[in-house]
Amino acid sequence: MAAAAASSGMMFSSATSDGCSRGLQRVSSITVLRLGLTRSAAVFSRTRTINIQVRTSISGRSSSSSVITAATATEASGKVIDGKSVAKQIREEIATEISRMKASTGVVPGLAVILVGDRKDSATYVRNKKKACESVGIESYEVHLAEDSSEKEVLQHIKGFNDDPSVNGILVQLPLPSHMNEQNVLNAVCIDKDVDGFNPLNIGLLAMRDREPLFVPCTPKGCIELLHRYGVPIKGKRAVVIGRSNIVGMPAALLLQREDATVSLVHSRTKNPEEITRQADIVISAVGKPNMVRGSWIKPGAVVIDVGINPVEDAKSPRGYRLVGDVCFEEASKIASAITPVPGGVGPMTIAILLSNTLVAAKRAHNFK
Amino acid sequence: MAAAAASSGMMFSSATSDGCSRGLQRVSSITVLRLGLTRSAAVFSRTRTINIQVRTSISGRSSSSSVITAATATEASGKVIDGKSVAKQIREEIATEISRMKASTGVVPGLAVILVGDRKDSATYVRNKKKACESVGIESYEVHLAEDSSEKEVLQHIKGFNDDPSVNGILVQLPLPSHMNEQNVLNAVCIDKDVDGFNPLNIGLLAMRDREPLFVPCTPKGCIELLHRYGVPIKGKRAVVIGRSNIVGMPAALLLQREDATVSLVHSRTKNPEEITRQADIVISAVGKPNMVRGSWIKPGAVVIDVGINPVEDAKSPRGYRLVGDVCFEEASKIASAITPVPGGVGPMTIAILLSNTLVAAKRAHNFK
Repeated sequence: MAAAAASSGMMFSSATSDGCSRGLQRVSSITVLRLGLTRSAAVFSRTRTINIQVRTSISGRSSSSSVITAATATEASGKVIDGKSVAKQIREEIATEISRMKASTGVVPGLAVILVGDRKDSATYVRNKKKACESVGIESYEVHLAEDSSEKEVLQHIKGFNDDPSVNGILVQLPLPSHMNEQNVLNAVCIDKDVDGFNPLNIGLLAMRDREPLFVPCTPKGCIELLHRYGVPIKGKRAVVIGRSNIVGMPAALLLQREDATVSLVHSRTKNPEEITRQADIVISAVGKPNMVRGSWIKPGAVVIDVGINPVEDAKSPRGYRLVGDVCFEEASKIASAITPVPGGVGPMTIAILLSNTLVAAKRAHNFK
Repeated sequence: MAAAAASSGMMFSSATSDGCSRGLQRVSSITVLRLGLTRSAAVFSRTRTINIQVRTSISGRSSSSSVITAATATEASGKVIDGKSVAKQIREEIATEISRMKASTGVVPGLAVILVGDRKDSATYVRNKKKACESVGIESYEVHLAEDSSEKEVLQHIKGFNDDPSVNGILVQLPLPSHMNEQNVLNAVCIDKDVDGFNPLNIGLLAMRDREPLFVPCTPKGCIELLHRYGVPIKGKRAVVIGRSNIVGMPAALLLQREDATVSLVHSRTKNPEEITRQADIVISAVGKPNMVRGSWIKPGAVVIDVGINPVEDAKSPRGYRLVGDVCFEEASKIASAITPVPGGVGPMTIAILLSNTLVAAKRAHNFK
């Protein structure tokens, strides 16, 4: 889902996407912020420094994509926000809650996923969701339809899941084949089971003061959860969200606003994104351009959440590519007080929040507190 | 409605609300921007200077509320955005469209207003709406219920209007008596007749890219319409909205975003509202604090839309008070390139847009283009 958001294709005229560092090959140490087991504003003070010996082997390369990733960051002064670890913690909390729910009500939450066609990436996402469900005790239901299925067939399956009390959340894996109307399909999902939170009614409730959405979209909620669990204050802070997609940027801005940040939304038509971003105490970038946000964009001490998951060519990788964020990690990590790596930052949070939303839906359906 | 928004009671810690000018008594001239009859980006170049001889008589007063209003502005360099004139023009356009619709389909739009209780201000608003409907050819329907009516009675009337094909728009005059649940009542209005645009589904569709709300809330739409009709470019501009109410500030920010402005939403928790506002090419203030926004908040050449309608004591006025905006007009008008006065700025636009929304609803219901 994060990848889908990241690839929504915003173009920033003043941005540079060439590699932000070249030929780095030093043995490095990074400071890793260890997560306490409880969410607390004091977490930041409980840091431990761990020396990680990493020998990189990208000497001699000077291509535009030779950007080091979090694991190989040199001279990073910013704390690395460990999304993988937070996501694991959230999954453990969910598993505990589901056990409690099962013991009390005899039922477990159910999540249905509808996959249409044979896209490899979609199949991978669906498989990962299924695995994640199993790991916490959520029953998963899957329908896999052929690429040439009709919209009517998809709608029939949605109706079936809408009517099935053992299903608490329904996910339609996007993108759908081009002969289907995505809006029609998504609108067919009953609002009580819209665990993706993409229904416009949910978005409206998210935007309004004194109203509560039934579900919050997973990736932006994951960003805010990282801030919460790392004790980053939001109230009264300047926040800049870069990118205004329906599934990440826009709802992330609304969420920050709900928490009393002063939010500016920077997008492809913004004339001076660097200058505006540099005013922010909190930056969330969800654009889909590798290394667009340079160190010079970051205010010293800011907290940076990087939603971008961008593949860049890498001959040294067995897959021929590796993943980098929207933010030039090497530069930004020296200036930010804390930053998410890619991979291992926001990415793992999306599925964790999806599981959390499914649990919320099930608790609501069974009136279980 | 604008007044309701303005009185939503935001408090800005760093703001000053003492009068922004004192004891002014000079004969003054202001530049009034004349409106062309067509909406055009070239309108700005067609300005005419009109000398208005105004003799003010507030000498000797130095109370905190002795702020001059638009009509008595001294040395204003900013163009005054004449909302009264734009609203009149919009009403004329609506009347023409309704004649055309009546000639073609035999029907005219209908607007139903439900008023509960005996608040004088509410009764005035309802009377003004009725008059405005008559002036353009919209049939108006009114229900006036006693203060101690039940919520059930109100809901029954809403249901009646929902089912009545001659009613295209339904307005519930707010505030309702405290024993009623405002959300329940507003949610009962059928989305196709929600001409106020306050339904969360409409707000969600307004927030989302590539989606279209059925109706846009009247006051913020009125602000944007003023910018359009005065040919103020929005795309790529920095915009600051001050105040985040559900009925003005938040939807105004979403509207500016839809038009590709880079929007920052300033609110009661913002630490440096002056500094942020001074970066804006377009400022919309909807807070409800008299003269909070001083000249020093305004970037030279910015366009200022003042939604606030705040009564301040005025012994010289027959009513004992007069209305001022959120913005210190005297100071800001010297720095802004254009500014709305209070009264006569955004105020008249709200009802004009309500009539426009009702026409849109009727056209949609009768499939009339």
